[in-house]
Amino acid sequence: MDFSVSPRVVELKARARQIIDTHVIPLEPLAAQGWAKVEPKLYEVRKLVREAGLLSPQASKDLGGAGLTFLEHAALSEELGRSGLGHFAFNCQAPDSGNMELLHLFGSDDQKKRFMEPLIRGEIRSCFSMTEPEHAGSNPTWLGTRARLEGGEWVIDGHKWFTSSADGASFAIVMAVTEPDAPPHLRASQIIVPMNTPGLTLVRNVSIMGHEGSGWMSHAELRYENVRVPESNLIGGRGMGFLLAQERLGPGRIHHCMRWIGICERSFDLMCKHVVSRQLSPGKPLALKGPVQEWIAESRAEIDAARLSVMHAAWSIDKHGSKEARDQISAIKFFVAGVMERVVDRAIQAHGALGMTDDLPLAGFYAHERAARIYDGPDEVHKASLAKRILGTYGLTSERK
Amino acid sequence: MDFSVSPRVVELKARARQIIDTHVIPLEPLAAQGWAKVEPKLYEVRKLVREAGLLSPQASKDLGGAGLTFLEHAALSEELGRSGLGHFAFNCQAPDSGNMELLHLFGSDDQKKRFMEPLIRGEIRSCFSMTEPEHAGSNPTWLGTRARLEGGEWVIDGHKWFTSSADGASFAIVMAVTEPDAPPHLRASQIIVPMNTPGLTLVRNVSIMGHEGSGWMSHAELRYENVRVPESNLIGGRGMGFLLAQERLGPGRIHHCMRWIGICERSFDLMCKHVVSRQLSPGKPLALKGPVQEWIAESRAEIDAARLSVMHAAWSIDKHGSKEARDQISAIKFFVAGVMERVVDRAIQAHGALGMTDDLPLAGFYAHERAARIYDGPDEVHKASLAKRILGTYGLTSERK
Amino acid sequence: MDFSVSPRVVELKARARQIIDTHVIPLEPLAAQGWAKVEPKLYEVRKLVREAGLLSPQASKDLGGAGLTFLEHAALSEELGRSGLGHFAFNCQAPDSGNMELLHLFGSDDQKKRFMEPLIRGEIRSCFSMTEPEHAGSNPTWLGTRARLEGGEWVIDGHKWFTSSADGASFAIVMAVTEPDAPPHLRASQIIVPMNTPGLTLVRNVSIMGHEGSGWMSHAELRYENVRVPESNLIGGRGMGFLLAQERLGPGRIHHCMRWIGICERSFDLMCKHVVSRQLSPGKPLALKGPVQEWIAESRAEIDAARLSVMHAAWSIDKHGSKEARDQISAIKFFVAGVMERVVDRAIQAHGALGMTDDLPLAGFYAHERAARIYDGPDEVHKASLAKRILGTYGLTSERK
Amino acid sequence: MDFSVSPRVVELKARARQIIDTHVIPLEPLAAQGWAKVEPKLYEVRKLVREAGLLSPQASKDLGGAGLTFLEHAALSEELGRSGLGHFAFNCQAPDSGNMELLHLFGSDDQKKRFMEPLIRGEIRSCFSMTEPEHAGSNPTWLGTRARLEGGEWVIDGHKWFTSSADGASFAIVMAVTEPDAPPHLRASQIIVPMNTPGLTLVRNVSIMGHEGSGWMSHAELRYENVRVPESNLIGGRGMGFLLAQERLGPGRIHHCMRWIGICERSFDLMCKHVVSRQLSPGKPLALKGPVQEWIAESRAEIDAARLSVMHAAWSIDKHGSKEARDQISAIKFFVAGVMERVVDRAIQAHGALGMTDDLPLAGFYAHERAARIYDGPDEVHKASLAKRILGTYGLTSERK
Repeated sequence: MDFSVSPRVVELKARARQIIDTHVIPLEPLAAQGWAKVEPKLYEVRKLVREAGLLSPQASKDLGGAGLTFLEHAALSEELGRSGLGHFAFNCQAPDSGNMELLHLFGSDDQKKRFMEPLIRGEIRSCFSMTEPEHAGSNPTWLGTRARLEGGEWVIDGHKWFTSSADGASFAIVMAVTEPDAPPHLRASQIIVPMNTPGLTLVRNVSIMGHEGSGWMSHAELRYENVRVPESNLIGGRGMGFLLAQERLGPGRIHHCMRWIGICERSFDLMCKHVVSRQLSPGKPLALKGPVQEWIAESRAEIDAARLSVMHAAWSIDKHGSKEARDQISAIKFFVAGVMERVVDRAIQAHGALGMTDDLPLAGFYAHERAARIYDGPDEVHKASLAKRILGTYGLTSERK
Repeated sequence: MDFSVSPRVVELKARARQIIDTHVIPLEPLAAQGWAKVEPKLYEVRKLVREAGLLSPQASKDLGGAGLTFLEHAALSEELGRSGLGHFAFNCQAPDSGNMELLHLFGSDDQKKRFMEPLIRGEIRSCFSMTEPEHAGSNPTWLGTRARLEGGEWVIDGHKWFTSSADGASFAIVMAVTEPDAPPHLRASQIIVPMNTPGLTLVRNVSIMGHEGSGWMSHAELRYENVRVPESNLIGGRGMGFLLAQERLGPGRIHHCMRWIGICERSFDLMCKHVVSRQLSPGKPLALKGPVQEWIAESRAEIDAARLSVMHAAWSIDKHGSKEARDQISAIKFFVAGVMERVVDRAIQAHGALGMTDDLPLAGFYAHERAARIYDGPDEVHKASLAKRILGTYGLTSERK
Repeated sequence: MDFSVSPRVVELKARARQIIDTHVIPLEPLAAQGWAKVEPKLYEVRKLVREAGLLSPQASKDLGGAGLTFLEHAALSEELGRSGLGHFAFNCQAPDSGNMELLHLFGSDDQKKRFMEPLIRGEIRSCFSMTEPEHAGSNPTWLGTRARLEGGEWVIDGHKWFTSSADGASFAIVMAVTEPDAPPHLRASQIIVPMNTPGLTLVRNVSIMGHEGSGWMSHAELRYENVRVPESNLIGGRGMGFLLAQERLGPGRIHHCMRWIGICERSFDLMCKHVVSRQLSPGKPLALKGPVQEWIAESRAEIDAARLSVMHAAWSIDKHGSKEARDQISAIKFFVAGVMERVVDRAIQAHGALGMTDDLPLAGFYAHERAARIYDGPDEVHKASLAKRILGTYGLTSERK
Repeated sequence: MDFSVSPRVVELKARARQIIDTHVIPLEPLAAQGWAKVEPKLYEVRKLVREAGLLSPQASKDLGGAGLTFLEHAALSEELGRSGLGHFAFNCQAPDSGNMELLHLFGSDDQKKRFMEPLIRGEIRSCFSMTEPEHAGSNPTWLGTRARLEGGEWVIDGHKWFTSSADGASFAIVMAVTEPDAPPHLRASQIIVPMNTPGLTLVRNVSIMGHEGSGWMSHAELRYENVRVPESNLIGGRGMGFLLAQERLGPGRIHHCMRWIGICERSFDLMCKHVVSRQLSPGKPLALKGPVQEWIAESRAEIDAARLSVMHAAWSIDKHGSKEARDQISAIKFFVAGVMERVVDRAIQAHGALGMTDDLPLAGFYAHERAARIYDGPDEVHKASLAKRILGTYGLTSERK
């Protein structure tokens, strides 16, 4: 093992950090006023990012990205994650980065040209429409949305929510049952639906933790009523929806973990700064208090362990592929989410009432990243599947799991 | 010991629950649209509450309240706490209930008439202006706000925030240093300041967890610049501010704990309902999952232990006074806050993405009651003072604590 | 609710505490040298206890006990639990107290005379032989031990372990399958087997946390090979074994909880004394450290909440019977075990290396009460059954649980 | 970063594992019968280890060791740690490995020849005599033991305990104050005292968690009364005792962490095997239970994160020296101790009553490794010093820490 960080990565991180600190963090207050206010500014930052050679860092160079490995992207992503706007500024934000990857691997030439390329160029936005209010998100094989082929067109009917960033997106990739009689994992397909297709209605941006949000920072409820798109909008083959979703989500999960490390470091840094400067009485900074020192030490140990776990998983994907790394991905999904939750919580507590305010990013991290233990598979699902795979190696037979 | 609940309390709770379920919970979605939308409706509900003989339940009957003991109020308060609007509907909400009590115990006859009585009648609102952005809230003896007596008037200059519910209040009770040369605990005084006094500016409602809020549901930043009020607006005597604040906060803390039990029960109930009805696959409800069952069992045990602790503290106050009960009050302040945090967190996790939405009250509980471990003394302050009092009985001398 | 402690209970506790402090705690070092060393001394203490009117406190007066209610016994038991020898000194130790109760409720007149009465008089010891190495203790319906009726005698064959206190006992109550073809919960019966019956072999005292122990402080592995006892040694009727075990274990569980509160208080007291007296440098006691103060405050809050929960459950049993109180019993079983574990752990940490030594009782509490989360039903079983009963009231049907 | 494990390390681990599984684990039951029973067998195993080229793995080759780097030793150590006897079998056990290192770095040629070389050859044992019953071990600068120079001899008087493995050792390295008037960190010196020196009495092996232990597996209380050794037995210079202790303890701490990973893996493996084979009812293994699966998944994630943290610290020591790595060492000391505690606890709970018995190593891990959070600096001390170093980089000045 060699834990050295390569000069290339050191330099990448420094370049990214400079942009984040100088151009992105100052936009955070604007984002609180609504997506429309901040979006044009972020597109301006993207120009700088493109000039710095870092736009769409995870996409390959021939496609116009920066062609980073997973390990390099993990290192970069920590810098971007320090701001909630960082990934957007570098065009590697969910759900678009997942859609880029999905289309790259499984899209037809025409789909790539029309949908993937403008995404990678950072010109349009997209969304991924899977979760339904009527069904548990933790069972992705059970969906009510149906698509039937009729006269060379897919006719889609269904009800979705938590279609993040649908508001303002150019197209959705929708999961719909096309083979109702197939085994559960082979029933659904993924179909591209331009957002302006008749019959597709954005019912509302679902209010989350007190906010409807808007634009990229929103989670839509959508109705599909007799929505018609060409047969060629199917991604991959019929019945492949679940398998494609797994392919899409695996790397997506590790992208989240990378980003969470950035949230941890930003929160940790704010906590340290505050406790050194905040005085309880003249000359007695909060930093002298034993419980505060414990928060700092525990956070440092946990963040460093979390980072190494994420880096190791990223290295495994580069080396062996995401299928081989799936145990590691499951493990970091819940482990890093837990670390982030504790670090952000301690940072808020260290700030007292100030930590509750939107004068700092901590309250936003706290409220919105509560979902980290839910989205892309709740902790309990990841724990159960990791345990079952491990216990399988001890002889637990699959019919019993 | 006798754990029987008296028929009177059983009946009180039923009467309150009926009003909460029928008239208050249905107003919750309205509250999300801003205080101005819901306030008139809540004043209508107060009429029903008054008819039911339950308005201002903690105030004595001769003052127009319902004259409940602490123990009875604790039982009632759990019912009210099931909705974030419950205490307001019954006119026993913070910060008004604390101000009523403070004026009742220490106000002059004139102060009672002009400020306390309309509060108890539920006609006006008030606020308590203590915390300052420049000083740690956990050290209430260190304040920058100054009041000097000049020509029969107090002239107040200072900067406050987290003056909850200042927006729309009729008056503030402000903590200001009047005796800068006295020992720390004898420096401040409490002075009543009508909100329309020249020089008093509401700078902003501080955005908390993504929201500025409004009206009663807001936390203001205030500037006092050359604010002048009559000398007779002083509550109690000069230099008594800290002592009065302690008197005010002791019962206030237990009021919060009572309310948190209501939040726990509402969350628990939502969790149980959801896991029984939400199916993971046809015929397999979420309730069958082992981790979910653990959340339910642990929550039940913790809530019941928390309730008994609160009831015991309330009984002690009734029996021996709040000074004798201060160890219990410190203990329940952090113990019940912790229970609530865990119960609400489990309820959200059990709901998955739905738990993040404002379609249910859970996200609001999660975001806004994060402050429970901070307001009225952060956990760490309560733990340290409880420990020091205990260790004092083991011989730890005060100069060393 | 009335949390007053009656003068009778105050007096009871004082009387018991005096005996524990003066006569029992000084015997603890002797117990470390083996049961044979301490047993005669404990029988001497029992004489004092009898004179004080407190021997067999839970047994009714006409049987020679002190006739305490559950609530009174809970209060007393906390005092006894401060020493690992306290319950034995007062003749209310497991497993004998459970056997007394079982025989009292379900024994024949002859069984009462020959087995129960000498137990209550504190003259003999007994054991309860249920758990088997080959089967999970958490499923008490699945047993390998068989008893068949042959010529007016039960002929018993089987293998047991964790038959606590078998070493030196006069008789065992053994759970054996007598109706192999009945439904699972109706297969076993309880049969009294004098320990000197031919064919009954004490294979070993199982070494637990480094110790085989001896006498009352041991956990035996037993073989039953062609063991013959009279038909009349059956307790209750054929196939009632599981039901009787439930009856026996319900109150047994709460007895443990009562005792654990005593362990908590002893540990808490040792911790407070130590941190006040142990100096980190001259004049700087350990008690000044913030994390230590947090341990003390959290322990105080948790112990008090645990005590109230136990008292409430005891009161419910007195008032409504143990069946009605079973949810409470399940809840306190795991809740109080958790509190005890944390309190003992903090007390050890506060003592540093000294806490690991047998110069104090903490290490013994830590090692041996680790089993508190396992014996009489592991935490997970209690949580699952509590949750299922709660979810049943929300409509979860029994076939699905 | 490159997480590949080198072929050399893969081979090293395999070689060690084979010896541990075949020759060491089978000796565990013998160790329970006392050190005298197992010691000769372990010396036989050492012959095999020497033949395998792995004896004294951390010592340099020219001294007769295997010359492993820290990183290689960390990898090896995990294999050895799977048994409590593993490190002894390979002659890298505490306290001897620390003493070897100390003498290697700071011993005189004569000291090396007489004391270090036979240690490295695995012929004798030693001990390190620092902790005193009268003073908090967490403040190593405050000692009562005194040594004065008199006629070319050190005359030592004092009282120590937790001098691990003194029973049967050839010599002790004792920390004694030689410069009482120097600043606290410069008062003590380290002096070699052969155990057979007149005036040195082994008062007792302190009973720990129910056991006095013996030989290498014991923790002695020692009296030094007018103990005289030659002036040349001083290690390093006068007043260097504290600094040498720090040098000795830094690597010692990471050695413990490496070993704990082995304990984790052994416990994890036992847990997985048990839950797959233990049936709750016919055909229903314990492994199907949700909470059990959570224990397995959480343990896997935590152990892997802990291992990476230990490896990273070992790599840093190899690369930058132990002083540069001290933050990492502090962090892993408490982080890995916590992971081990949770993993062992879960493994016991998964085994039920069996987990409490000495039929498996889990109970021994649980009882004896409770000290992991205490020895070589309690968690609280490591957290405080890590936090202070971090906060120092944020400007917290040293006089305030």
